[in-house]
Amino acid sequence: MTRRIIFPAVAIGAVLLGSGASLQGQGDPLPSWNDTAPKKAIVAFVEKVTKEGSPDFVPPSERIATFDNDGTLWAEQPIYFQFAFAIDRVKALAPQHPEWKKQQPFAAVLSGDKEALVASGQKGLMKIMAVSHSGMSTEEFARIVAQWFATARHPRFNRPYTDLVYQPMLELLAYLRANGFKTFIVSGGGVEFMRVFTDKSYGIPPEQIVGSSAVTKYQFAPDGKPELLREAKVLFIDDGPGKAEGINTFIGRRPIFAFGNSDGDQQMLEWTAAGNGPRFMGLVHHTDAEREWAYDRKSRIGKLDKAWDEANAKGWTIVSMKDDWNTVFPLANQ
Amino acid sequence: MTRRIIFPAVAIGAVLLGSGASLQGQGDPLPSWNDTAPKKAIVAFVEKVTKEGSPDFVPPSERIATFDNDGTLWAEQPIYFQFAFAIDRVKALAPQHPEWKKQQPFAAVLSGDKEALVASGQKGLMKIMAVSHSGMSTEEFARIVAQWFATARHPRFNRPYTDLVYQPMLELLAYLRANGFKTFIVSGGGVEFMRVFTDKSYGIPPEQIVGSSAVTKYQFAPDGKPELLREAKVLFIDDGPGKAEGINTFIGRRPIFAFGNSDGDQQMLEWTAAGNGPRFMGLVHHTDAEREWAYDRKSRIGKLDKAWDEANAKGWTIVSMKDDWNTVFPLANQ
Repeated sequence: MTRRIIFPAVAIGAVLLGSGASLQGQGDPLPSWNDTAPKKAIVAFVEKVTKEGSPDFVPPSERIATFDNDGTLWAEQPIYFQFAFAIDRVKALAPQHPEWKKQQPFAAVLSGDKEALVASGQKGLMKIMAVSHSGMSTEEFARIVAQWFATARHPRFNRPYTDLVYQPMLELLAYLRANGFKTFIVSGGGVEFMRVFTDKSYGIPPEQIVGSSAVTKYQFAPDGKPELLREAKVLFIDDGPGKAEGINTFIGRRPIFAFGNSDGDQQMLEWTAAGNGPRFMGLVHHTDAEREWAYDRKSRIGKLDKAWDEANAKGWTIVSMKDDWNTVFPLANQ
Repeated sequence: MTRRIIFPAVAIGAVLLGSGASLQGQGDPLPSWNDTAPKKAIVAFVEKVTKEGSPDFVPPSERIATFDNDGTLWAEQPIYFQFAFAIDRVKALAPQHPEWKKQQPFAAVLSGDKEALVASGQKGLMKIMAVSHSGMSTEEFARIVAQWFATARHPRFNRPYTDLVYQPMLELLAYLRANGFKTFIVSGGGVEFMRVFTDKSYGIPPEQIVGSSAVTKYQFAPDGKPELLREAKVLFIDDGPGKAEGINTFIGRRPIFAFGNSDGDQQMLEWTAAGNGPRFMGLVHHTDAEREWAYDRKSRIGKLDKAWDEANAKGWTIVSMKDDWNTVFPLANQ
């Protein structure tokens, strides 16, 4: 695998995202998708809702497409990438906190004791999130996250985390936009964490990212300029039922197209399905242990159980990564 | 005044909003603005940031413009229009609540006792907002609000409230969009109240409305379809410092252009001003008692005091409604 370029996925993404319209003219807009049922369902849906005069025609302003991020647009194993950031941040801050060597969950992070880390539970997780995600201005946080993306490497692939976006989904985003859709991310991840890379990686601008958020506090920095301090208080959790609520509060329109991969996306898909007119609901099923990972009902991360049952019962589209994608990551063939 | 058409402002707005680009070709894009300093400052700013190759050029993706709503895009006297809705809603619900005749603040609303209503204070206000704005699904709420707009009349002008949008601001919104700006509303008003009319009246789609919001709860209606129940709990107050915080959380980019009219907009303007590169900060000063209203430092609604001082100190643009606008409302000349 090459590591010459720091953000190769970005460059590839940009080419794709910028040329969605012309891709169609050049032939297949979804070359990384096999010609199996999911691709056929996507293309049939897009052709149906964009055909003027058809009873299924949807005006461009209502072509809202929402995507989960972790496990749907990029990988989420062995741990959510934002949590990998939080762990690295604790390590980076440790020299200023000698007391952490004896305090959980920090001691577990610093000694690499996974068992003790898991044992610290939700409370431990919140402490790690607090020290890594609050107490700084929003601008400082964005700088810290950008710096992490530039240097951190995924443990299995030894590549920047942003290389682990899914090539078929980049193509799908571009295809939808070329057909007048407005693409949004609706993720349980932190909105300010995502905004650092989502515009470059997916072509989705900051104002189209819905995520979990912290309370911020308007104040004046020593230089007299206003800043927003990130506090260790949750404003909104955009997961499960929160995804339907977040779509309503932040977007204010019901999607006609939604894609997820886990039970955390179930309500977003239900909310999408319950609108009038044509609808598309999709799930990525992680079935490819060789190229990516294979997990579903028993997984601690990205558990796909109830949403899978509902998808089967209601005929939603289920994408098997192994069978339906001929390429997973943008650099797979390099 | 004519009342033939229910939403004449909408029709006029639509014509304007749809033809922003061609207006420029046809001459003055801001015909309702006198050729005074504010108009010159607006045009100079827009020409500067859209001139490719200029050191002040701003790429379209960063041309974010945010507008307050009450008192900036439409009138806000004698009471915020959303509060007029709440009062009318209390009256409409009263037959189902005979106990309200003896309970404040409801008794004050039903008997028209303004003094008792004011005396009920913030607590009374919250009770009125709770019964009028919560306990129903988001879809039901939108239907109630739309019905109110179709029938309610402003007490002074005896016209639909949506007729009281400002013609010069409709032109400004269209002018900015024709020049590649993305226009947002950032208002203390309820986001779901605004979304009922803002697309039609201003050409600003639901996903570009930032406002105050209630907590909603995902649940299943008796027909088995999911719905979002509006609860009597505040999620976010988008006013004062909350406007800077809301811009960051909901939009995720700093505006380069912002317009307000009161102290509730001060932090939005400061936040806009504190970014790098060219910036435009504007305030509407209500100076026209004849055509609209005249109020500032002493007003209970739309108080303009500290923001006015800061605007004067920092050279922000102050629009005198009387001197700088030759037309106030779209139907003024009919």
